[in-house]
Amino acid sequence: MGADHARRLASRIVEARLSAVADPDVERAQALADELGGVGGPVRVHADPLDLIVDPEVDAVVLASPGSVHEEQLLACFERGVHVLCEKPLTMDSASSLRVIEAERAVGRPLVQVGFMRRFDPEYTRLHELLGSGRMGRTLLLHQTHRNLSVPNPDFRSEMIVRDSLVHEVDCARWLLGEEIVSIQVISPTPTRHALDGVVDPQVSIFRMESGAVVTNEVFVSSRTGYEVRVEAVGEDGSAIIGRPWGEMYTTTVGPQGVDGAAGSWGGPIAPDYRVRFERAYDLEVQAWVDATLRGEVVGATSRDGWLSTLVCSAGMESLASGRPVGVALP
Amino acid sequence: MGADHARRLASRIVEARLSAVADPDVERAQALADELGGVGGPVRVHADPLDLIVDPEVDAVVLASPGSVHEEQLLACFERGVHVLCEKPLTMDSASSLRVIEAERAVGRPLVQVGFMRRFDPEYTRLHELLGSGRMGRTLLLHQTHRNLSVPNPDFRSEMIVRDSLVHEVDCARWLLGEEIVSIQVISPTPTRHALDGVVDPQVSIFRMESGAVVTNEVFVSSRTGYEVRVEAVGEDGSAIIGRPWGEMYTTTVGPQGVDGAAGSWGGPIAPDYRVRFERAYDLEVQAWVDATLRGEVVGATSRDGWLSTLVCSAGMESLASGRPVGVALP
Amino acid sequence: MGADHARRLASRIVEARLSAVADPDVERAQALADELGGVGGPVRVHADPLDLIVDPEVDAVVLASPGSVHEEQLLACFERGVHVLCEKPLTMDSASSLRVIEAERAVGRPLVQVGFMRRFDPEYTRLHELLGSGRMGRTLLLHQTHRNLSVPNPDFRSEMIVRDSLVHEVDCARWLLGEEIVSIQVISPTPTRHALDGVVDPQVSIFRMESGAVVTNEVFVSSRTGYEVRVEAVGEDGSAIIGRPWGEMYTTTVGPQGVDGAAGSWGGPIAPDYRVRFERAYDLEVQAWVDATLRGEVVGATSRDGWLSTLVCSAGMESLASGRPVGVALP
Amino acid sequence: MGADHARRLASRIVEARLSAVADPDVERAQALADELGGVGGPVRVHADPLDLIVDPEVDAVVLASPGSVHEEQLLACFERGVHVLCEKPLTMDSASSLRVIEAERAVGRPLVQVGFMRRFDPEYTRLHELLGSGRMGRTLLLHQTHRNLSVPNPDFRSEMIVRDSLVHEVDCARWLLGEEIVSIQVISPTPTRHALDGVVDPQVSIFRMESGAVVTNEVFVSSRTGYEVRVEAVGEDGSAIIGRPWGEMYTTTVGPQGVDGAAGSWGGPIAPDYRVRFERAYDLEVQAWVDATLRGEVVGATSRDGWLSTLVCSAGMESLASGRPVGVALP
Repeated sequence: MGADHARRLASRIVEARLSAVADPDVERAQALADELGGVGGPVRVHADPLDLIVDPEVDAVVLASPGSVHEEQLLACFERGVHVLCEKPLTMDSASSLRVIEAERAVGRPLVQVGFMRRFDPEYTRLHELLGSGRMGRTLLLHQTHRNLSVPNPDFRSEMIVRDSLVHEVDCARWLLGEEIVSIQVISPTPTRHALDGVVDPQVSIFRMESGAVVTNEVFVSSRTGYEVRVEAVGEDGSAIIGRPWGEMYTTTVGPQGVDGAAGSWGGPIAPDYRVRFERAYDLEVQAWVDATLRGEVVGATSRDGWLSTLVCSAGMESLASGRPVGVALP
Repeated sequence: MGADHARRLASRIVEARLSAVADPDVERAQALADELGGVGGPVRVHADPLDLIVDPEVDAVVLASPGSVHEEQLLACFERGVHVLCEKPLTMDSASSLRVIEAERAVGRPLVQVGFMRRFDPEYTRLHELLGSGRMGRTLLLHQTHRNLSVPNPDFRSEMIVRDSLVHEVDCARWLLGEEIVSIQVISPTPTRHALDGVVDPQVSIFRMESGAVVTNEVFVSSRTGYEVRVEAVGEDGSAIIGRPWGEMYTTTVGPQGVDGAAGSWGGPIAPDYRVRFERAYDLEVQAWVDATLRGEVVGATSRDGWLSTLVCSAGMESLASGRPVGVALP
Repeated sequence: MGADHARRLASRIVEARLSAVADPDVERAQALADELGGVGGPVRVHADPLDLIVDPEVDAVVLASPGSVHEEQLLACFERGVHVLCEKPLTMDSASSLRVIEAERAVGRPLVQVGFMRRFDPEYTRLHELLGSGRMGRTLLLHQTHRNLSVPNPDFRSEMIVRDSLVHEVDCARWLLGEEIVSIQVISPTPTRHALDGVVDPQVSIFRMESGAVVTNEVFVSSRTGYEVRVEAVGEDGSAIIGRPWGEMYTTTVGPQGVDGAAGSWGGPIAPDYRVRFERAYDLEVQAWVDATLRGEVVGATSRDGWLSTLVCSAGMESLASGRPVGVALP
Repeated sequence: MGADHARRLASRIVEARLSAVADPDVERAQALADELGGVGGPVRVHADPLDLIVDPEVDAVVLASPGSVHEEQLLACFERGVHVLCEKPLTMDSASSLRVIEAERAVGRPLVQVGFMRRFDPEYTRLHELLGSGRMGRTLLLHQTHRNLSVPNPDFRSEMIVRDSLVHEVDCARWLLGEEIVSIQVISPTPTRHALDGVVDPQVSIFRMESGAVVTNEVFVSSRTGYEVRVEAVGEDGSAIIGRPWGEMYTTTVGPQGVDGAAGSWGGPIAPDYRVRFERAYDLEVQAWVDATLRGEVVGATSRDGWLSTLVCSAGMESLASGRPVGVALP
């Protein structure tokens, strides 16, 4: 993801220059710097992200490091007063998120944008706009679907579905409906035979919102079909669906045995992963971050949004264990 | 519905003849008999359904009467040993359903088909076949959606959503997955402003199945958009959706102000009600019933299926009050 | 096709009884009679269709014989004054069609329905109704697509595409637009490598209508993908498309190598042939024919429609050779 | 279009700076310069495009001027040796296009990219890639559809449909199939009642390609429904369609009278114009042009492509008058 963002900054983002990259694997960082240095000037290399953050050539920072080191790195950014685009999660728990928020507040101006890229996806922004317009009346229900092809990590655990996948649905529900989640219930179907041992996959979650709206979520990370992200919003005066795969191209193909009598099929490919599905959203997110940074502002998800999604996911992990609804302790 | 079935029997069903109709409103019954008598011989008229059931010209009976009188009418059918197609619900509660089942058993051969017409809808039967084929692996989840245009009845109550609408989803879940529902949880979002006073609409329900599969259901009877019935089945090796409205015709229309610069839209109409959406399913259901009756058999949903769906709906009404999962006391 | 119709009459058509079948292969006819005799009484067997036509048990006749013998058989039906549903083509050329029309006229009442089953297909009838309603203004263009999986016949020739496939598009254009075709131009792309030697496949045809409307047609009988029949109608105030395959079921499937990183696809099957695609249309056509026959009427395409489509196809075969537009000599 | 491109260069294109704008309406140019100057430095204003072309601050030029002045402006660009992105048409006729090509050749390196933006549209590039991959076998047919909402210009003439709208289909056919058009036939249906007096709209055109492939085109500029651009490619082993409007969002809406019994509809909006439909394509086109210019290269459509599309359109205007196929005099 870090290399993705570096390439994006180097070649597709206006009014920004990739000035440095950091990676403990310095050789890898150097290779990336060599690859990208040609476009907009030399790219400096740091082994330690904290060195990059204090590099005087660096005006703003994208954090694509593991969530466990975000707190330390964010605090370093605040010390220098530089804007930071922090990939989700903000931090790993509520206490550390609150410390981050506190430190940012001490700076006196917002500095953090959390990387919930869907807020910049054209389909999501159109749905957001539609729900906000009131044309569908009040929104009563969201049905969210989130499927991945498979789980690359042999150490994968059920909680990671909540923390890394469901967290996007948490942010989308809050953002699309413009209100907080007050309780979450995680329901565990019998897992697919393709799930790693002991992993509950798929999971069905129910959010109850402040207004009484209800959100159902399917997260299924070993779907084996591809990356499918869909939302249906149901309002008092209509419904809307985004995230269907059939926009781009519809093809027919020959039958499995060619001419010998078997008819073919119609359809198209499913996106393999979030990089492909949300490529444009990432570009728009980073461009919006650069533009806002130049104006001294923050757009998209704030550190408070990052903290609240962490809070909901913590409640979700508790519900994953019990199956019962767990209230979210809102401030 | 009774008149619908009478017209169907008179004009679209092979190997059957409409011989009699019953209605306390004898004039209405006579008008129907006059209308339909021409096609296949005279149609006799009864004010009392029990008189129709013992009419020697009647070989088999379709019950489209209110659920509260089904028990008495079914028992009368059993006494004569005639086959009966009974619109859902079988009866209003579990105890009366069990009495019906007992009486049918005493006859020594199955006589009742319950009118769950979706089991005969081509889309549903294809999905049933697909799930049964194993090509999608084990089915892990169903997502069911059931929307009506609006509620005609000013005495409508929340429980009727469970008993009259959700009951179809109950039967579909049992039939599609081939297993029993072990618990049901009804979640109540804040109602639409179009709901009658005190009515919880929409409702979200969760079924847990014997195998651990999970079924989510949206039932929304004041959707104001039309009659939409959809299912998505999610298996270990793929997913499938039926019930989308866009099969028939895709149209574009001019903009709201014609030529003055506003672009139009694409799309098509939504079915207004179940009669339109399931017209073909009803024809196929009644034909299958006639064919099975001639062979002395019963196809489709049995009295046991009718009873089990009643059991689940009773648990659902309990959960509607508490919001908590309620177990279904399976035999 | 004859056996198909026999099964349809025996089991799915109201107010009709299959009384006899004819086939020079008497054993095959007897097997069919044995299979279907149980349902509605015994089925008589004739080796010679002309014997069936004069069989006193036969009240109406379905002709599914080759077009070359239609004239003789139709004249025999007229002699007895029985109604006849004649599979297209009415006859093989204009002169014989005119003789048939003359003989039918001599009887004094219409007796022939030509088997253009699309006129009874629900999608087509809805489009017909929409175009007739004037809601789309005058219809300016039709774009028709007709694809078959492959050609079973090793003696297949380019002319047969015009006579057996394009003829349906000819009838649809006349029926949907309610006017005559005044000229036809057949354009020959380089053939697919899957075409038989010397066969021009696909073919693009252009019809000019009396009103000046234009119809484009693609006929591609070795498409290897399946049976696809589509029409787009373009009016002054909107357009409409029918015949898309995605109504029934939308599925996702796993990637070609399962979990090892390849995403799957979404879509569904294409109908293998016209029997599957137009199964319902055939049922509705034959039922409408039986109903009309009982009233002494003819519905659907008349002998005149059959003759006019033959006229257009003759012009089409001439244009196939020259590539130039050929006028249709309307009466 | 010029202002559009100026805004694009000022705010969405990497490695480029908007340094000057030219417009005979100097006030309008100054307003645009004031609006866009803030982002990337001051923007100079010229009344005469030729002054802009020789402005030493200008490294590359986007021509969005009328086609009739392209020749003079392109020659001025060649004199300075600056790269130029020239909106279509290259020039108004073949002779002037050839003079442009000759002058560019005299410079010794390619300098012109013609603004056929569809070559950069993600849907089109995916289709181009699919056809090039050979997975669908040889491409036998293209069916192209091009509809506009309405014609803003009261001086609109039939020829302008060929020159301004069909020209995109000409370029797409050449590019997608990778070969030249050898003849064009324009067929004139009776015009829509919404066409201006004497204007032939819609038009159906047929291209024959060198390989024998055939392309059918509908161009309908007073469709009153919106901007619809679609292509279906038919190959020996499958077909593919792009340009359908239903990718983004599917909505349902309430019936026209709300709750009183009328069901609503499903669907979505149609793009109002090419700016909305091809917004992303324009961005990608201009970025690709900037990137190529920095490398001293030309991508996309060349001056030769511009000339060849002009040649085909000239033949098309001839066929519009006669209705007969007109050969394209290829070099």
